[in-house]
Amino acid sequence: LRSGEFATIERLKEQFHEGRAAGILLGIGDDAAVLEPPLGVKLVWTIDEQVERTHFRRDLVGWVDVGWRSFMAAASDLAAMGAEPWCALTAVSLPADFEDEDLDALARGQQAAAVKLGTKIVGGNLTRGEAVVVTTTLLGTAVRPVARSGAREGDGIWIAGPVGLAAAGLMALERALLDERIDAAAEAWLRPVARLSDGRILAPVAHAAIDVSDGLAQDLAHIVEASGVDAVLDEGALREHAAAGWLGTIAEILGVDPLSLMLHGGEDYALIAASDVPLDGFWCAGHFVAATNGPSRVTLRTRSGDLRPVEARGFDHFR
Amino acid sequence: LRSGEFATIERLKEQFHEGRAAGILLGIGDDAAVLEPPLGVKLVWTIDEQVERTHFRRDLVGWVDVGWRSFMAAASDLAAMGAEPWCALTAVSLPADFEDEDLDALARGQQAAAVKLGTKIVGGNLTRGEAVVVTTTLLGTAVRPVARSGAREGDGIWIAGPVGLAAAGLMALERALLDERIDAAAEAWLRPVARLSDGRILAPVAHAAIDVSDGLAQDLAHIVEASGVDAVLDEGALREHAAAGWLGTIAEILGVDPLSLMLHGGEDYALIAASDVPLDGFWCAGHFVAATNGPSRVTLRTRSGDLRPVEARGFDHFR
Repeated sequence: LRSGEFATIERLKEQFHEGRAAGILLGIGDDAAVLEPPLGVKLVWTIDEQVERTHFRRDLVGWVDVGWRSFMAAASDLAAMGAEPWCALTAVSLPADFEDEDLDALARGQQAAAVKLGTKIVGGNLTRGEAVVVTTTLLGTAVRPVARSGAREGDGIWIAGPVGLAAAGLMALERALLDERIDAAAEAWLRPVARLSDGRILAPVAHAAIDVSDGLAQDLAHIVEASGVDAVLDEGALREHAAAGWLGTIAEILGVDPLSLMLHGGEDYALIAASDVPLDGFWCAGHFVAATNGPSRVTLRTRSGDLRPVEARGFDHFR
Repeated sequence: LRSGEFATIERLKEQFHEGRAAGILLGIGDDAAVLEPPLGVKLVWTIDEQVERTHFRRDLVGWVDVGWRSFMAAASDLAAMGAEPWCALTAVSLPADFEDEDLDALARGQQAAAVKLGTKIVGGNLTRGEAVVVTTTLLGTAVRPVARSGAREGDGIWIAGPVGLAAAGLMALERALLDERIDAAAEAWLRPVARLSDGRILAPVAHAAIDVSDGLAQDLAHIVEASGVDAVLDEGALREHAAAGWLGTIAEILGVDPLSLMLHGGEDYALIAASDVPLDGFWCAGHFVAATNGPSRVTLRTRSGDLRPVEARGFDHFR
């Protein structure tokens, strides 16, 4: 950064100025932000990190998108709890030769995401490092936070949003495919949106919820483990979802099975809710059942009626 | 990590189990932590990041110390606001070949610091990255948070804790000096402690405060800029402080001027308070004066009575 640490912080302060959030007594520029805690609600608090060459490559994604994606990924955790984002801090680690303009673009992406979600960036930290690391911590509020642990036997597996599309988008970007039909998938990966309004729908009734960051199989396995139930996905419902949206077409262009993208592809930030009543705008991908001592806690009921184990494999940072 | 992302999170959950904090409704293992906000106090929120090869080198510091230092550096921001730590989230980025034992050691250091400060780690994030990056975000509570911006003409520059000692310790470690007289300095760098009890002393009366993370000159410049006053440091008081503690001796061993370490050496996490009354346990390093249009906002009154400008130079990540 040509402008040095403290001049840059001043510039970021300007950039993050816009946007409103209640109860911010002191924002960027001090040792810490000072907040007036809201009354009658619970606080929901998350942290998420996006690391260069782990989560993104400079040649596939612009800095505005890096900022946007990192903010939305963090906010998605709040949506999955049925919470409303309140305010955010962000820590950014940058190589010494990082351009001022690129940091401005990154911050613009963060700021656009914050404004889109009706929240505000109230502070942060700036350090030097070899790779770009963008960390976002968000405080939210919720009347009835929904954990991973309450799914019950008989609950439907309700999903809001496309699943597998972001993974298809990343694959298309990596292969530098030029086909306008893949735009929806590329957009799903580059510009995910935390599903706050779906979170509001699940919040009052869902028994458990999670967002799809690592793929349906992996994230469903988290609910299953936390809740002490098993999950049966319905192949017919999954394939119908793929065919109804862009996923079927794009998987065909890519030459992959859409089911594999849905089960093991991440970063869609769809929401999974366990509920015994239908949720407006959600689709039903299967059911939670009583736990067995079978080899797999997540299984797929194929169209021929067989039960096939689904490996709880998604994106594991250390596998 | 041999054990993969999710098994590791389970292990960390065990490690962070100990420690108490009020109002934690849901801790590690969900999309987000759920907290019951305290009544009648303000929330104070900070984030800090320690990056391998920027903030520490593996050959100079053990993983327990990395965990401890990173947690204390974040907590120091709360102490400087006169706040009490409430709870924490931590995000850790690790190379793929990082050893399970080393992560356990790092977490042990974080946990020891959390317990020492009476706070609790309630969640986090784990990702792969080329360098180790440890991010800590802390929520604290305060009745009267003290910002950087309230220093007034005539206030004393009151300091709690040694200044320059950590920089001396780092220098000694880098030179691999073997002299037991440097132990106090090495300890100051390796094992800083956030000065919460000094924060409690400044909280009710200080007009402004900051912690010394980048050196006295740089951090004092932040108060001066935010408050619209100038600062005059008293060389005699600084040299007396150096002579009274270990700094004088150690600076002599290192062959450096203790004044330079005090002004431009960081990571001591001493507290600076602007106050018009003496603060118990603090020493007075000078005074805030009316702003002039002089070339430097921070000056040193030398023992001969001259005013010498002090460059606001400390650790700037991008200079």
